[in-house]
Amino acid sequence: MTLHQEKMRQAQAIVREEGVDLWLTLARETIMNNDPVLPLLCPVEFGGITGLFITGEGRTIALASQLDHLGLEQTGVCDEVINYGADFEAGFAALLARLAPGTIALNYSRDVAADGLTHGMYLYLTALLERCGFAGKLISAEGIIGKLRGRKAPEELRRIREATKLTETILREVAGFIREGVSQRDIYQFCQQRIAFYGAEDAWDHDQNPGVFIGPNPVIGHAGPGDRRAEKGDLINLDFGVKVKGYCSDIQRTYYLLRDGETDIPEVYKEHLANLHRAIDQGVALMQPGRMGWEPDSAARKGLTDQGYPEFRYSFGHQVGRAAHDGGVSMTRHRPGGGGEAPLEEGLVLTIDANLYLDRGRIGQEDVAYLTKDGAEFISERQTEIWLCGGQP
Amino acid sequence: MTLHQEKMRQAQAIVREEGVDLWLTLARETIMNNDPVLPLLCPVEFGGITGLFITGEGRTIALASQLDHLGLEQTGVCDEVINYGADFEAGFAALLARLAPGTIALNYSRDVAADGLTHGMYLYLTALLERCGFAGKLISAEGIIGKLRGRKAPEELRRIREATKLTETILREVAGFIREGVSQRDIYQFCQQRIAFYGAEDAWDHDQNPGVFIGPNPVIGHAGPGDRRAEKGDLINLDFGVKVKGYCSDIQRTYYLLRDGETDIPEVYKEHLANLHRAIDQGVALMQPGRMGWEPDSAARKGLTDQGYPEFRYSFGHQVGRAAHDGGVSMTRHRPGGGGEAPLEEGLVLTIDANLYLDRGRIGQEDVAYLTKDGAEFISERQTEIWLCGGQP
Repeated sequence: MTLHQEKMRQAQAIVREEGVDLWLTLARETIMNNDPVLPLLCPVEFGGITGLFITGEGRTIALASQLDHLGLEQTGVCDEVINYGADFEAGFAALLARLAPGTIALNYSRDVAADGLTHGMYLYLTALLERCGFAGKLISAEGIIGKLRGRKAPEELRRIREATKLTETILREVAGFIREGVSQRDIYQFCQQRIAFYGAEDAWDHDQNPGVFIGPNPVIGHAGPGDRRAEKGDLINLDFGVKVKGYCSDIQRTYYLLRDGETDIPEVYKEHLANLHRAIDQGVALMQPGRMGWEPDSAARKGLTDQGYPEFRYSFGHQVGRAAHDGGVSMTRHRPGGGGEAPLEEGLVLTIDANLYLDRGRIGQEDVAYLTKDGAEFISERQTEIWLCGGQP
Repeated sequence: MTLHQEKMRQAQAIVREEGVDLWLTLARETIMNNDPVLPLLCPVEFGGITGLFITGEGRTIALASQLDHLGLEQTGVCDEVINYGADFEAGFAALLARLAPGTIALNYSRDVAADGLTHGMYLYLTALLERCGFAGKLISAEGIIGKLRGRKAPEELRRIREATKLTETILREVAGFIREGVSQRDIYQFCQQRIAFYGAEDAWDHDQNPGVFIGPNPVIGHAGPGDRRAEKGDLINLDFGVKVKGYCSDIQRTYYLLRDGETDIPEVYKEHLANLHRAIDQGVALMQPGRMGWEPDSAARKGLTDQGYPEFRYSFGHQVGRAAHDGGVSMTRHRPGGGGEAPLEEGLVLTIDANLYLDRGRIGQEDVAYLTKDGAEFISERQTEIWLCGGQP
């Protein structure tokens, strides 16, 4: 079974589990205007208007344009591929009449990963359903998509492990590159050259991967790397991810550039790192299937404030998969309508992310973990010590 | 002025021209879920929920998340960048109250290029507008987006010319590569290696660029290249495009593999090519600003059927820009709701595309032209003769 056949199998089971009669994904010219769920279901783009129909009875049907039906047949992901020829609306009406679904789930949601249906297509589709004399009830497919993206198939997990391993390899190589006078931009370019060397891709926007934080008052967030140069005694933090065979990693590591005469990290930074890990571990302890997404986030925040540190500014963790920020339930603040208001589930892959802003830079830790029935299993190898750079050769 | 500053200037003028009070583009996590108009306006992706507000008075404002405001400031494309901090809805309400627009144009349309607003975001936005006590009238921004994408700024045209030139260079190189026994897949790989050599990108789906048609009964449309091998006497047709600095080309050229003893194209194929050009030229003659998009399409179809050939199966032409199929008005069949039901405009870049299916393969011609006030000005150099392959060295 290919990866896409595995995911299509999962999709059939989830549609049934959610009690939905029909899940319909409808798109066209997906190179220009994508639906983020499509790459999970099918390895080809859509040219002409094309629909994927997955029924509660476990049948998978593509209603495909002339441009797309051959490609879709070759993928072998659907039980049936219908070439509707020149008239999409006639093909659509005939297929709907045959399936006669009571509920139709469509891809709209506050969750970005489940919000692939454009509003123009929604208007077109609802008018078409009405003309078909179809009294189906439209619902959001966000529950289906959340589960489908979240529950990693074995091949997905394998690819995420591979991306993680490569990210760690490059992050280790960076330690040998950092020396006095090296700029954020230099480190950025070094990482980009390593990505090219290993034949991987960026896990997010090329201009902003990795984020490179050197010294105090670094730019917050994913702005492009600047011209700040490393000075002896600086803390340096990288936020880096690569994509391997369509799957991502997202990792932060921290480095220290030795002062003249130093041979080790200053004791105080070792303590800060240990304290940061203590707070993180309080969050990790609550990463259990069934816990709400906000619970680990709250625990880690409390872990920091209990030690007198400010809270981290963003979230404790997000899912990783085809995208570095993969949508669905996340470990974030307890906030109505937020990504943390849903339970964690076995099979998710999540980042674990927190940081401290200190006098000479940022100590950031971001790891990737797989959620088993017993809790978080780290996929990345946690950084037990800040990595040393410079010093006497 | 950067390219994006040029386009933003255009956008201000077009919003005024369309008599709209406010054009609002709202998106988040655009790496995962894109709005195809954003790359025209701004060189950075959006992370958190972020809006671009362009007013009928010519003011451009970004309401940006903490993750995005610095990047947006650095681009210099907006008059004003507001960091809304933690509360998007409060920032949105305040900005709306200040602008007090009577009409708000949003990105939804049947046209894929103007349909970037997801249905989930539409639901969120309309509920938010209601809560703000805002009685604005929502309209489609398709008119604005069609003009903005269509009217090429000087730098856009320069990049399309560069992409076109490179495509032609590689297509010429292919003539030296084709010999007896070379497969569709071999030609595909040759082209891909040349793209990499020149540091360009694919103009469409990597797996399907170029489309390679060898001999009779080739697969129709953009399915991936197969294992059909070239035989002496075959017609070979490539549909190929590259992207240079974000802008695309889309060109078809036709080759002939000489039989033993032959030194030239069989006379009958020369005549077919001349006849095809005659039909195409009847379409090109109607490529005039103010003519409806379907007019050149109809004329070229009639040019074929008048000579006893079947019509081409798809369209006579589409716009080229950031995408190889760039949306907006196109030269296609006269059909209610179709892409051809709008007038051509000065400043557009369009493909001109028609083909014949013959005994030993397809003769396809696709060129790229710029529409001036006087008509079509070819950007690609038209193929006056089928290109020869093979023969005695």
